[in-house]
Amino acid sequence: MEHDRIRAVRWDGSRLELLDQRLLPGKEKYLSYENAVAVARAIRDMVVRGAPAIGVTAAYGVALAARTHQDKSGEAWHAAMREELQRLETSRPTAVNLFWALNRMRGVLAPLDGGSAATLRLAEEAVAIHDEDIAANRRTGELGAALIAPGKSVITHCNTGSLATGGFGTALGVIRAAYGQKRIEKVYADETRPWLQGARLTAWELVQDRIPAELIVEGAAASLLKSGRIGWVIVGADRIAANGDAANKIGTYGLAILARHHGARFMVVAPTSTVDMEMANGEGIPIESRDPEEVLSWGGQRVAAAGVGAWNPVFDVTPAELIDAIVTERGVVEYPTREKMARMMAA
Amino acid sequence: MEHDRIRAVRWDGSRLELLDQRLLPGKEKYLSYENAVAVARAIRDMVVRGAPAIGVTAAYGVALAARTHQDKSGEAWHAAMREELQRLETSRPTAVNLFWALNRMRGVLAPLDGGSAATLRLAEEAVAIHDEDIAANRRTGELGAALIAPGKSVITHCNTGSLATGGFGTALGVIRAAYGQKRIEKVYADETRPWLQGARLTAWELVQDRIPAELIVEGAAASLLKSGRIGWVIVGADRIAANGDAANKIGTYGLAILARHHGARFMVVAPTSTVDMEMANGEGIPIESRDPEEVLSWGGQRVAAAGVGAWNPVFDVTPAELIDAIVTERGVVEYPTREKMARMMAA
Repeated sequence: MEHDRIRAVRWDGSRLELLDQRLLPGKEKYLSYENAVAVARAIRDMVVRGAPAIGVTAAYGVALAARTHQDKSGEAWHAAMREELQRLETSRPTAVNLFWALNRMRGVLAPLDGGSAATLRLAEEAVAIHDEDIAANRRTGELGAALIAPGKSVITHCNTGSLATGGFGTALGVIRAAYGQKRIEKVYADETRPWLQGARLTAWELVQDRIPAELIVEGAAASLLKSGRIGWVIVGADRIAANGDAANKIGTYGLAILARHHGARFMVVAPTSTVDMEMANGEGIPIESRDPEEVLSWGGQRVAAAGVGAWNPVFDVTPAELIDAIVTERGVVEYPTREKMARMMAA
Repeated sequence: MEHDRIRAVRWDGSRLELLDQRLLPGKEKYLSYENAVAVARAIRDMVVRGAPAIGVTAAYGVALAARTHQDKSGEAWHAAMREELQRLETSRPTAVNLFWALNRMRGVLAPLDGGSAATLRLAEEAVAIHDEDIAANRRTGELGAALIAPGKSVITHCNTGSLATGGFGTALGVIRAAYGQKRIEKVYADETRPWLQGARLTAWELVQDRIPAELIVEGAAASLLKSGRIGWVIVGADRIAANGDAANKIGTYGLAILARHHGARFMVVAPTSTVDMEMANGEGIPIESRDPEEVLSWGGQRVAAAGVGAWNPVFDVTPAELIDAIVTERGVVEYPTREKMARMMAA
């Protein structure tokens, strides 16, 4: 399909293949996995990244585990599978979609009894999770694209594309759909310091899928918005609170303020699995701070002056009042409030 | 002096020494210059950077040229000096302070007649230009510091310190003075992509001068402002229009919007030589766009995906209405307007 040719997670019926994202954009290499121990290690070592992509990968890991233990049955099989699931679960401790996918696999697994029939059933479920993720992203993409009036460009942040999901992407899925419908002139991708997901991953996806793109440093976004060329800023989310406050990669909140200041609109795109209705608002969302070295060094080489520290939060929280639309596979919430979010989640 | 121990431009009476800023922060190495041809090359090759520092360096270059031609006199001397001045003038074609310093040296040179007396007089004038720059920065620093209520931290952008000036700095001079007066808790320095002047130069200065500092990626500024820890954002300027609109390193304009959104204040610090009263407002200030490779590569290594471009403007313009104070060596202009700027310039 034009503008949608990348799959970072591939299943050929007996083997899992993961595009090694640590090597992008310099090298495009798929690694093969035939057992769940290696899959758990791949998740931990960031061969695959992005919450939905991790969930899909873990589901395939469960199918591979079932094949490993195919000669077992009954309680021996269940005991072996419990151990495998636990290993997958601890591969990336904060990934909500990982727990979600493993719980779904657990539900399918519970009445099974091992052997090749169980292996087939679990592989079928993993494929279903994968297909549903792509279908949900396509639906979300159409819903988001419909909001975009043709004739302008967009800014996006971090990577929310095929690499981060089962395929197609969330925010980048909206961009794919909208570009296919000729609603977008060009995509400006924030390079997204300190990890440079924009430069390394988003730019790579857009080039692969022939969508016109230019990188900017984060500091250039305000000037670009001032130019009037930008209709929408479109980003993903790591967690959305019940009132619509959205946590996402550091830099997102500032973009939302700059968009509002210049009269551009601001769209948050995420699956409903990202919405946490137990979390009243964004103030309760814990913000991880990572190693200052990520800011101070580059490719293992110290860049910053010796003796200086860095403040390196991974996420920030954009308050609902700066968000023009939250788009999920279940619908669009314009100017989000607690009531509108609850209605969308109940749909 | 505590918190002011760095001089990137040094004159020992017969020789110019420049701290090679291309090697910072990894290596602290001074290069020696005994003639103006080498000084012009050093300016062109960015051994020295920052408009005021370039002006001071060029003035010393004129003194060195006079010594080179000390055995000439009359029209032969003037002809040789004209050629030397022209070479210095074309070393960095857009540096306003470079032209200003060379014109001042030209005025001193005009009635002279060569020989060692001329060399001495020109060296004296170069030292005066250097001393006046430092004195102006100290005065500016005191004026700016007086605006800062104690108890909070500040954010700064790019490098505006001793490395960019004859010494002490402009925005960083205000920070030096304010820290000395215990008005500032900590300095947060934007790393300042794509050139990383914040990580490489500002952090180095602050560590040298024992001022507590932490680096942030540009994307973290909004969260930091939200935290309430920041009283002022303090930046330099490359050019200030008659109405107070200020052009400065890309990223400055966005910081001004974020500061206003969070109720922090925004200070622009620059010498009056930066103010262009012929330029009615910021819209007329030309914005240089540089090589996309600066964004796409790192240390000569391609980082971004092959095939993607970059939009790489060097400066942006902050409108006067987002500026709480412009501070120069002649005074403070709060909430700048054309009238207030004209009054300050006439003072």
